[in-house]
Amino acid sequence: MSPPAKSKSIQAFKSAGLIGKYGDPGAGGTLRELSGYLRQRRIEVLLDEGTAQLLPGHGLETGSRDEIGRRCDLVIVIGGDGTLLNAARSLVSFGIPLLGVNLGRLGFLVDISSQEMTQRLDDILAGHYLEEKRLLLHASVERDGEVTSASDAFNDVVLHKWDAARMIEFDVHINGRFVNTYRSDGMIVSTPTGSTAYALSSNGPILHPTLDAVALVPICPHTMSNRPIVVESGSRIEIKVDEASAKNARITCDGQISLSLTPGARVVVGKKDQCVRLIHPANYDYYQMLRAKLHWGENF
Amino acid sequence: MSPPAKSKSIQAFKSAGLIGKYGDPGAGGTLRELSGYLRQRRIEVLLDEGTAQLLPGHGLETGSRDEIGRRCDLVIVIGGDGTLLNAARSLVSFGIPLLGVNLGRLGFLVDISSQEMTQRLDDILAGHYLEEKRLLLHASVERDGEVTSASDAFNDVVLHKWDAARMIEFDVHINGRFVNTYRSDGMIVSTPTGSTAYALSSNGPILHPTLDAVALVPICPHTMSNRPIVVESGSRIEIKVDEASAKNARITCDGQISLSLTPGARVVVGKKDQCVRLIHPANYDYYQMLRAKLHWGENF
Amino acid sequence: MSPPAKSKSIQAFKSAGLIGKYGDPGAGGTLRELSGYLRQRRIEVLLDEGTAQLLPGHGLETGSRDEIGRRCDLVIVIGGDGTLLNAARSLVSFGIPLLGVNLGRLGFLVDISSQEMTQRLDDILAGHYLEEKRLLLHASVERDGEVTSASDAFNDVVLHKWDAARMIEFDVHINGRFVNTYRSDGMIVSTPTGSTAYALSSNGPILHPTLDAVALVPICPHTMSNRPIVVESGSRIEIKVDEASAKNARITCDGQISLSLTPGARVVVGKKDQCVRLIHPANYDYYQMLRAKLHWGENF
Amino acid sequence: MSPPAKSKSIQAFKSAGLIGKYGDPGAGGTLRELSGYLRQRRIEVLLDEGTAQLLPGHGLETGSRDEIGRRCDLVIVIGGDGTLLNAARSLVSFGIPLLGVNLGRLGFLVDISSQEMTQRLDDILAGHYLEEKRLLLHASVERDGEVTSASDAFNDVVLHKWDAARMIEFDVHINGRFVNTYRSDGMIVSTPTGSTAYALSSNGPILHPTLDAVALVPICPHTMSNRPIVVESGSRIEIKVDEASAKNARITCDGQISLSLTPGARVVVGKKDQCVRLIHPANYDYYQMLRAKLHWGENF
Repeated sequence: MSPPAKSKSIQAFKSAGLIGKYGDPGAGGTLRELSGYLRQRRIEVLLDEGTAQLLPGHGLETGSRDEIGRRCDLVIVIGGDGTLLNAARSLVSFGIPLLGVNLGRLGFLVDISSQEMTQRLDDILAGHYLEEKRLLLHASVERDGEVTSASDAFNDVVLHKWDAARMIEFDVHINGRFVNTYRSDGMIVSTPTGSTAYALSSNGPILHPTLDAVALVPICPHTMSNRPIVVESGSRIEIKVDEASAKNARITCDGQISLSLTPGARVVVGKKDQCVRLIHPANYDYYQMLRAKLHWGENF
Repeated sequence: MSPPAKSKSIQAFKSAGLIGKYGDPGAGGTLRELSGYLRQRRIEVLLDEGTAQLLPGHGLETGSRDEIGRRCDLVIVIGGDGTLLNAARSLVSFGIPLLGVNLGRLGFLVDISSQEMTQRLDDILAGHYLEEKRLLLHASVERDGEVTSASDAFNDVVLHKWDAARMIEFDVHINGRFVNTYRSDGMIVSTPTGSTAYALSSNGPILHPTLDAVALVPICPHTMSNRPIVVESGSRIEIKVDEASAKNARITCDGQISLSLTPGARVVVGKKDQCVRLIHPANYDYYQMLRAKLHWGENF
Repeated sequence: MSPPAKSKSIQAFKSAGLIGKYGDPGAGGTLRELSGYLRQRRIEVLLDEGTAQLLPGHGLETGSRDEIGRRCDLVIVIGGDGTLLNAARSLVSFGIPLLGVNLGRLGFLVDISSQEMTQRLDDILAGHYLEEKRLLLHASVERDGEVTSASDAFNDVVLHKWDAARMIEFDVHINGRFVNTYRSDGMIVSTPTGSTAYALSSNGPILHPTLDAVALVPICPHTMSNRPIVVESGSRIEIKVDEASAKNARITCDGQISLSLTPGARVVVGKKDQCVRLIHPANYDYYQMLRAKLHWGENF
Repeated sequence: MSPPAKSKSIQAFKSAGLIGKYGDPGAGGTLRELSGYLRQRRIEVLLDEGTAQLLPGHGLETGSRDEIGRRCDLVIVIGGDGTLLNAARSLVSFGIPLLGVNLGRLGFLVDISSQEMTQRLDDILAGHYLEEKRLLLHASVERDGEVTSASDAFNDVVLHKWDAARMIEFDVHINGRFVNTYRSDGMIVSTPTGSTAYALSSNGPILHPTLDAVALVPICPHTMSNRPIVVESGSRIEIKVDEASAKNARITCDGQISLSLTPGARVVVGKKDQCVRLIHPANYDYYQMLRAKLHWGENF
């Protein structure tokens, strides 16, 4: 992962896909303002067909995620971090850059407020912005050598105990080496992006976004020395849930996609070949956001 | 809770109830040895009827937990800590002392090994032992002023997220005072006994067994300053799960009893009037057990 | 410790001692306003002689801490929590109630802002207030059976490594029982009051102020399972620093009093016989203060 | 950092430098055995002149660290991890591989026991071994643009409060970006190698040895959301201690080298150009060592 670099050439975005927060009519006003702005700038607009339901009478062309990926050269996401996670997973294979606009509450990923949206877009469309590449994970559930289900994850792949009060037991291997038999409430495999999400609640470290690494963070481990481990992002991580625990365990990706486990199945997590391209305003400062989001300035 | 005191008078236990680990045929040998030993000592034996299934041809009188509670003046539990938790909840109202024998792996509660069992019992039956009083909790789920379900807990009353990847949201009041709105994977209300169980995996403190206190330990809290709080055991703790979270939340007591939550229900946790009476060998040392169980002696 | 109780009888404070933050001229204005207010209310004012230096031309009678303790029936402390810790240690033996006024930044102990000071005092002088009893610790360094130095502590007695990069090694006994040999940067013995001070930075639990308990919180322990332990406040806690570590170790009380250690010395910490009496406004709410000070309301 | 790779070519070590634990006469026997073995294998032996004092009548040629670095093609260190840290710092610029033999207690770095020493060396001298490259840090204290003191560190560069009970205050910048103003007992900047040393006691994550990263781990931070941050190893980390705190702060490297701070000085930490080359037996397994050292196998 290279550090964010200021784009020098004049960037000409010609066609923008718009994706709004799922099921949130509050995103409508911002979407209308944004589409008006973009058309005025003579940028073609393609509205996500799932989002279109928020905007009765929008008068915009709509398209599937695939159509957006193929036809647009920029995607603007309006909502919270969850909306951007979803957009990133669905569009990563198209290599299209994503820009996040929040609806009032600063997110780690959606870092432009709707109030300053058009002003920031003036700069960005003029080529003044930072582009950052962020890694994703790919998780597959395998049994008898066959993949039974799979998903990408931008934040994290999480093994949870499910429908049960008791902890689960599982073995972890990294690059074919046995790491440990864990007894815990689960395990979070987190990208740098996900390190400030669920992993942080479970005592995980903060990984700088450009770090080429993945953190394995056990959830409420029975053994107190079972600390988070950070490994190279290219590592092949294998989790094999104990037969007795498999019915009380599940995999989720970004807390949005759920993969079920059957006895004998193993979960394999690795780095996705493609990266997510995030667009930030030119004055973007990761540590400033950390300080704001984690209330570092406010001492007790 | 008064500290453990050495019994001075000669204690004459006349009738012992025996409870074995549920569904573990391995407990059979120890139960046979124990019942033989007790009859030789002219102590009447009453075998828990659930345990009797482990012992085909046992030739012993069997009884329900209630019969054991009414007729015996000592209960010997053979199994792990989980077996003793179960026995304690079912017998606490009878004020009968409990003695725990483990089947090989030292427990926090079952502190006599089956190898040294008869030797320890010689001492205990001669009146050389420590008796310790330990507090229990009582949890009730209430809705519209009515109790819909309830249970005692010797280790902990735990609010869990259930069947869901996302955190739950809930308000906690103590003695009528609002404490906080938590967003987390749940909350553990732990007795001193439970402080070395699940609560310890979730960053809770160790509470000395005789401390008259209860710990509230949030599980993976979203806000990192949401630390464990220790309050007087007599406190009335109220947990009200947010309507949207209620269907994805559940209460468990000692990880063994499950109470379901419906929207609008609240959970009230308080100290049980009766205490559990635990019998230990005269040389029992709490800190020695901590050191052994938590591997304190072994530095890395 | 009994819970705070609303005073019913009409309280007639007749004489107030005033103590200002040491060396802070900014406390002068508030002290002047306060002394004017009190004289108007016909309450005799005795100014702490150390504080008097802040107030050239104050025209008030001055006295030592002992004179304040003997002659006044209320002490008002103006400054931060540190000022109140100091006042509490110097006055605890007189059983005189303390009221804390902060100079702009809310403290855990100085909970009245200088802006609302006179309004709150109207209520308090009319008998509308809460009185809370809080426990103190007493630490003594002993060698060959003799006490070589000693101090009270309202927040905590802390064993620190000193002047050294390496961890220190020490044994802890509680009530004569060996607890553990620790290898760490030190150990915090904290009152409930101190549980939201240094102990909190070192992973200690929050103890409710009325809990009759003390927490032992190891600082950066080498063994990760060396977790905080909470014991009854009446416990006798003995810390014996390893001979080789003694020259690189020191005891501090409330971070304000320093006691040196010599090889062979041991530190004995126990509960002070007298309690500190804290006066709060009638609407005082401990949890509200926790939420404000620990930023619990602000999610990331 | 590339993963450890099995050496294929037949390695002919011709000259070995020997370094023993400083001031430990117990290392003498192993050193004698080792030098005998090496001479039998016709490998020239050069004994560290500091170590030579342990071996009266050793009959070996002695040399300074620089002579060892220039003349030998292998260095064997006999002692604990501390001995190897010291050897690594003194020899890193020579690019010479290091092999660690422990004197009874398994270390993270000295992973061959003296009992199995000659057997392991048979394999290693036959070319069957793993070589691992590990990164070091370089810390310099700068004032008014001049370097006043500097040192390498293999485990960690630590900013400590010193000679004081109170926390210190300091600003951290990474690559010129302001990260945070910390109020804490200090800050650990740790290599992957150091992540299982002091940093682990202060809640730092475990970094896999081949990860090209550095962890910043605050010590007892006042703000609980000040979590460890992991950044690329090539980052320039600048720590500027507040003027008022400078006299109560110090820098140590590996806990062995101490650099003093003066008001106005700043500490700059970056990656050392050269790496340490560690030699392990061919069956070396990092996770196996973690499990052994952190007692992961032993559940409570």
